[in-house]
Amino acid sequence: MSREERYEHGMKVLSDVDGEAGQRVVDSLADVSPELGHQVVAWAFGDMYARPDLSPRDRQLVTLGVLTALGGCEIELDVHINAALNVGLTPAEISEALLHTAVYAGMPRSINATLVAKKVFGERDLLPVKPSE
Amino acid sequence: MSREERYEHGMKVLSDVDGEAGQRVVDSLADVSPELGHQVVAWAFGDMYARPDLSPRDRQLVTLGVLTALGGCEIELDVHINAALNVGLTPAEISEALLHTAVYAGMPRSINATLVAKKVFGERDLLPVKPSE
Amino acid sequence: MSREERYEHGMKVLSDVDGEAGQRVVDSLADVSPELGHQVVAWAFGDMYARPDLSPRDRQLVTLGVLTALGGCEIELDVHINAALNVGLTPAEISEALLHTAVYAGMPRSINATLVAKKVFGERDLLPVKPSE
Amino acid sequence: MSREERYEHGMKVLSDVDGEAGQRVVDSLADVSPELGHQVVAWAFGDMYARPDLSPRDRQLVTLGVLTALGGCEIELDVHINAALNVGLTPAEISEALLHTAVYAGMPRSINATLVAKKVFGERDLLPVKPSE
Amino acid sequence: MSREERYEHGMKVLSDVDGEAGQRVVDSLADVSPELGHQVVAWAFGDMYARPDLSPRDRQLVTLGVLTALGGCEIELDVHINAALNVGLTPAEISEALLHTAVYAGMPRSINATLVAKKVFGERDLLPVKPSE
Amino acid sequence: MSREERYEHGMKVLSDVDGEAGQRVVDSLADVSPELGHQVVAWAFGDMYARPDLSPRDRQLVTLGVLTALGGCEIELDVHINAALNVGLTPAEISEALLHTAVYAGMPRSINATLVAKKVFGERDLLPVKPSE
Repeated sequence: MSREERYEHGMKVLSDVDGEAGQRVVDSLADVSPELGHQVVAWAFGDMYARPDLSPRDRQLVTLGVLTALGGCEIELDVHINAALNVGLTPAEISEALLHTAVYAGMPRSINATLVAKKVFGERDLLPVKPSE
Repeated sequence: MSREERYEHGMKVLSDVDGEAGQRVVDSLADVSPELGHQVVAWAFGDMYARPDLSPRDRQLVTLGVLTALGGCEIELDVHINAALNVGLTPAEISEALLHTAVYAGMPRSINATLVAKKVFGERDLLPVKPSE
Repeated sequence: MSREERYEHGMKVLSDVDGEAGQRVVDSLADVSPELGHQVVAWAFGDMYARPDLSPRDRQLVTLGVLTALGGCEIELDVHINAALNVGLTPAEISEALLHTAVYAGMPRSINATLVAKKVFGERDLLPVKPSE
Repeated sequence: MSREERYEHGMKVLSDVDGEAGQRVVDSLADVSPELGHQVVAWAFGDMYARPDLSPRDRQLVTLGVLTALGGCEIELDVHINAALNVGLTPAEISEALLHTAVYAGMPRSINATLVAKKVFGERDLLPVKPSE
Repeated sequence: MSREERYEHGMKVLSDVDGEAGQRVVDSLADVSPELGHQVVAWAFGDMYARPDLSPRDRQLVTLGVLTALGGCEIELDVHINAALNVGLTPAEISEALLHTAVYAGMPRSINATLVAKKVFGERDLLPVKPSE
Repeated sequence: MSREERYEHGMKVLSDVDGEAGQRVVDSLADVSPELGHQVVAWAFGDMYARPDLSPRDRQLVTLGVLTALGGCEIELDVHINAALNVGLTPAEISEALLHTAVYAGMPRSINATLVAKKVFGERDLLPVKPSE
């Protein structure tokens, strides 16, 4: 595959997963680091995300764990909580996954990520979250 | 539930998920911080892990993401990669999940976690890992 | 203790330590993750904070160290710098504790936490901070 | 050297490197932690930055790596991306350095730092960045 | 104060707090980075640790919080848990402080630090730790 | 370029920069995550490291900053301190770069990285390091 073909393949995966939110991140990088935008699309989505052996839904669970633990990734959590909804995780599952991180990453990281989820769920009219019981 | 009942409930969940590995962590805390051991069992497993809305398999995907991103958690990754196998994730899925973290947490964290997986898989006679293609 | 009793016990501790600020964090979680709010109250404050062997003042010193080192916890530092004042630490002691973190966590983390302290002290009319000499 | 002389020496280094941006950080600490402001000037710049064996340009490359990896240091990245320009790094070199961090610290940290660079470059009329080919 | 006087002052503080353990860290740096050893002594202990407004005991509580949250600082935790004992914190208080970090930094960081405490307490014949009730 | 050509290109860059140390990391991943080994070679070195606008020497300064700040990356620091020597940084410059990180990432991270440098320098008969004074 050529560089352009890898980019186009990645952009298709990115659009399926992130909708417009991922595109906005790439656009925001265009005049400062077009190569970083290229790598997000061609490598992160084209080469990595699209690989077999783990479904998009499972990848988002891992990604939510990583981004919550890193801290300071509110922009990326916004994109990836949207992505999590897009690939089939329910609001209750996402809230529960972020609650689960409290055990391993502590309450503050869990709270910060949950407040991003609240913003995303609000924008998509998914509040209040209804736990299964 | 009494404090003892919460502990017993948690120990049952812990045994199902971690087998003996979790018990060894709790034992290692007995003479220095019995309360920390109690909280791992009664709270982390009894109250949190056992909640509905996310399956053990899904919880382990989140946990692998968190522990890889934190870094310096080789002891805990050993326990939780074993746990991941115990609750139904395959070696190929675990390797792929740890590969996926490279995008968000960088290559070094991904490599360090993968080397712990290599140790665990070796001990359980699961090497080499066979990706799906 | 029942789940409700643990919550009520925790809420009493939380109110003593954090005043209204902790309550606001719990409220902000109500429609997205009521269980996370419950765990902050029932577990973090009811089970853990209220334990013997370390005074509230000492706990806040540890907490300030943890939150400063983690980074990206400005919301939680706001709550816990208020809490530190509530349990008897002086502004000069808090500033000195945050200065001390520079040795171990570096200047940027120390500066970021100190700017949160400046905001909190300003809101409580405690500026300028007067060091002891 | 006396305490005052160390401060004056540090302030000269700070002004050369950071221009007014460093001074603003020091000023912002004046009423909450004058000693932290003193240490930034007298120690970080007077004692450490001014040492031989590494040029200011090389120091800024290390600093960009550290601040990007830490995360949550947008304020400090703003100061130090300005400093990097002041000591002779080009916008293309800075963008490339921040892109390089993606390999080791992951895409989110790299993106966050690059968006701070975009802000700084915009303020100094240096957009769009022109890679060498 | 001259550079040598600052070093001697710092070494006196370091010896009071850390005993021989701090000296060993400084010695280990002698042939690779004598200046880093100098800064640990002259700056970290001479300039910072010895300041008023926070007692050595309080400083160690903050330090334990920072080092536990950072992760990967087992060498430094060893030194500073020894230091904590030297300046008057009891084993029960230290264990409780490290348990307290679990709320904010998560269980793995708390467990890792507690296992270092176990090693230090064992070397000083302070096991088992006796909580107050 | 085909997948194999990208790998071969990356392996050439990796060999130039890391000598045998990088190869050993890739080999260690062969039976647990061959794709991670592929990505280290084809992406990290072939696509990213080999890009223009930043010299290998400059990239190593950034990398040392990132790896020191992350913590828990002793394996990778070993590889990259060797790489830093291979691309022309002197032991004195490397020690100074790691000392510089103390300002931004704190003393413990700086000490830990410096002790890895001591090991690498010792293996290559480069001790004691001679600062330029």
